[in-house]
Order: sequence, then structure tokens, then C-alpha cells
Amino acid sequence: MDEPVVLTGAGGRVGTAILEGIGPDYEWILFYHSNPDEVPVDDAEVVVGEVEDRERVDEAVADASAVIHLAGDPRPEAPWSSVLENNIHGTKVVLEAAAEAGVDTFAYASSNHAVGAFETDERKPDLYRTDDDFLLDGTELPRPSNLYGVSKATGEVLGRYYYDHSEMDVICVRIGNLTRSHPPKEYERGQAMWLSYRDCAHLFDRCLQADYGFEIVYGISDNDRKYYSIERAREVLDYEPSDNSAEYTFEGEPKEDG
Amino acid sequence: MDEPVVLTGAGGRVGTAILEGIGPDYEWILFYHSNPDEVPVDDAEVVVGEVEDRERVDEAVADASAVIHLAGDPRPEAPWSSVLENNIHGTKVVLEAAAEAGVDTFAYASSNHAVGAFETDERKPDLYRTDDDFLLDGTELPRPSNLYGVSKATGEVLGRYYYDHSEMDVICVRIGNLTRSHPPKEYERGQAMWLSYRDCAHLFDRCLQADYGFEIVYGISDNDRKYYSIERAREVLDYEPSDNSAEYTFEGEPKEDG
Repeated sequence: MDEPVVLTGAGGRVGTAILEGIGPDYEWILFYHSNPDEVPVDDAEVVVGEVEDRERVDEAVADASAVIHLAGDPRPEAPWSSVLENNIHGTKVVLEAAAEAGVDTFAYASSNHAVGAFETDERKPDLYRTDDDFLLDGTELPRPSNLYGVSKATGEVLGRYYYDHSEMDVICVRIGNLTRSHPPKEYERGQAMWLSYRDCAHLFDRCLQADYGFEIVYGISDNDRKYYSIERAREVLDYEPSDNSAEYTFEGEPKEDG
Repeated sequence: MDEPVVLTGAGGRVGTAILEGIGPDYEWILFYHSNPDEVPVDDAEVVVGEVEDRERVDEAVADASAVIHLAGDPRPEAPWSSVLENNIHGTKVVLEAAAEAGVDTFAYASSNHAVGAFETDERKPDLYRTDDDFLLDGTELPRPSNLYGVSKATGEVLGRYYYDHSEMDVICVRIGNLTRSHPPKEYERGQAMWLSYRDCAHLFDRCLQADYGFEIVYGISDNDRKYYSIERAREVLDYEPSDNSAEYTFEGEPKEDG
């Protein structure tokens, strides 16, 4: 990829995982909400602004070949006013700017919360366990667990709209539970949807490299417990995760035979 | 139904069709955007206000058993700022108010524009014709044709969210091309998705009467040309449309043998 990749929300957790993993592999334009204390990649261009500020976004995407859009209010309990403005409106601004600038590839950080209400009382906690067959594959209609999840599902609809009305490929990654080094401890749900830092970086690398049209995929490691299928990510992205929460004990330590 | 039905967007085209057809059958609270010249139903309570005004909506839904939510910017070409505020935010306000007031049934006017981008250049105009098998059934992910369609698809996601988090049944009706008396003339697409006034009133009557959980159905007459399935509406609502655009000539006149 000759032209730079714009990464919004560069200071967040997903951005950190991506830059730790594939920082040296691309020319980056890092879009931060506020001035970063430290920029994790040498020679990256830094832009500080709001993603709702169309002019600022236009400057950032002008010569980009790809955008990874992570910016937004990341709190599952975020109030409607914030997700309406930051997540729904902000994502529309970035998608439109990218489409109009001729960006080729747009990877959007959706969330497990777009489908969190599939975790009904009847299905819990069985669906977090390996002997349960329940599996979401990305073709299902959203069932958000909260208004944050509504905003993420709306971002997917916006992504579909800009895919259908521009030359840009769009992929929506429903990110699971991203943690550094080991899966969440004593939290079955988090173990089922665990995404390791290196798998996160690899997944977004594949989003930048692969050819697809419009896709919705689940972003989790290859956990034994999973109730999100990663088959579509394997198929369209050649996603090959390295990690599996089952290789850690319930306390978060690697298993000796893991 | 002993308690009143709130109808937002009462002055619009869909509201007019509903009230002409089933006006005498319910006790109505008609929510208008601006003062109506004339109220089409005797003894209806009239509320004038914005659906974004939570207090005004709270007053309207306080004792209601059902809400039919039609209000919003109805223009397919409406700008983002308007659909973000009126359609997305407005629908969230009405859904939340209804859920918190203990309303039993919420019928939401979604739109064919939520899925308009399925009408690709490759499929057109064949999909508007009777010898084509392409059929949408409401389980497909949205593909909006415009930002208005994005807002309508988002309303469906909000509907799902409030269904999953309240005691309220929610149905989303993807309304086709509603016209009075005869189908659109010399407009194949409009004939394929025609909804007659009487079928519209009957369909929303069924939305008020039937038991369902959460549903997305297509709101069209039983047109020969259709590329939207009405099977789900038949099944869950006992929708029995009376009209078919094929019973009219291309000029919009009833066929002699129709």
C-alpha cells in the first residue's frame, strides 16, 4: 500500500493494539481526539480533532488509500446524546469524507454490543460454553444490548450505504473483548469473545490487504468457547488467529500444555 | 382495545390513509407537527408538537395502549441533518417514551428506502416484473438507497432494542408506494411496491390487533409484480390485502376484467 492509512481513535485500546502489531508496516495518519502524550509509531503524521469536523477529516483522508475508523464514545453505557453525535454522526462524516476522497478501503470498528441482546436469559450462560451450538455469523439482523450497540449497528448501515454508493470497500468488524496478554479472568462471556492484541492487529492488517466488497465479520480470537463464527473472516480476509482463550486457565495464566 | 392509540405524523399521507380506513374503530390521540386545518376523526384528542420533545410525547403516550409512529422527515432526498434529528433521534424519543409508559404495541413506519439499494443496475428493471424471482422477505440486512433510508433502517434497530428491553411488541412496516385510488402510472417500480389506501389501513389495523414479538414486514398490496414478500405479514398479522396493481392498466385505470 503506497498511500497512507488514516486511523481514527488512534489513542484508544483497539488503535493501540493495531499500532503495536502493524505500526511499522504502513504509513500512518493518526487521528487523535486530543493531543497524544506519545505517538507509538515513528514518522506517523498526527492530526488532532473531532471526527465530526468534516474539514479536519477531509484534510486527513485527502491522499489516503484506506481508513480504519475506531473513533467514537467507547462506553457501553454511553448516553444517547453522545453516541448519536460521536458514533452515528461522526461515522457518517468519516465515511462520507472517505468515499468522496476516493479512499479504496474502509474498516469500521463495530462491536459485540450490536448483537448483545442475543444473549438472552434463556441462552445464558450456556452459549458461552463449548458444548453449546449457538453461533452468530454476521448475516443476522442486529440486536443491540445498549444504545452504544444501536450506534454501532447504525454505523454498519451507514457503511453499507457508502459501499453501495461509492467505489469504496467497507468492512465492519464486530470486535469482541480485547485485552492485552491474557483473556479476561473468571468472565465466561469475555473468554468466549476474547480478542488478543496480536489477533486484533492481524485482523485489521487483513482488512487493509484483502479484497472484499461489503462485509460484516466478528473480531475474536479462535476461542473454543466462541458463539461468534469467524468463518467469514477466515474466508474473505484470510484471517488466521493465533490465540484461543482456552489456552489459559480460568485465572488468566497460560496452561502448561497450552 | 380500551385505551387510546397514539398516531404520530397524523397529518401525513400514511396517517391519512389509516384514519380514512380505521378512524372510527379506535380512540385516537393524534400527534401533529403543526396545527391541523381539519381533524379527520371525530372526538380524537389532538396534540401539536415535535416528536423530539420528550415531555410532549410523554403526555401523549401516558395512557396509550399502542403507538403508530409515522412522524419524521418523509423526503427520500432529505438531508442528513434532518433525518438524524427528526427520524433517528425523534424515533428514539417516541420509542423510549412508549416503552417507559408501558405501551403494549408499537408500529413503526419504516420504508422501502431502507432496502432500496438492492435494486442494482443488474437487477433493474427485471425485478419489477412478474417473471423475476428476486424477493426480499424482511430477514435481509438493510441496503438503504439514501440517507432517509439509513434513518429508517436505524429506526428498525432502535425498535429491536426497545423490544428487547421492554414489555412492548414492536413491528416495523417497510411501506412501499402508497397512493390513493390507483397505482402509480407508467412507473414499474411503483407498481411493484404499490400499497393502496385501504390495504394500508387494514395492515396497520392488523398491527394493532395481532400478537407478535418483534417483526419487520413489507407493506405493499398483493401486486403480481412484487419483489417484496408479504408472506410474513400474512403469517404474523393475518394481513389480507384487497388490491393488486396488476388489476389496473398501465395508465392507472381499472382493467375491465379486473
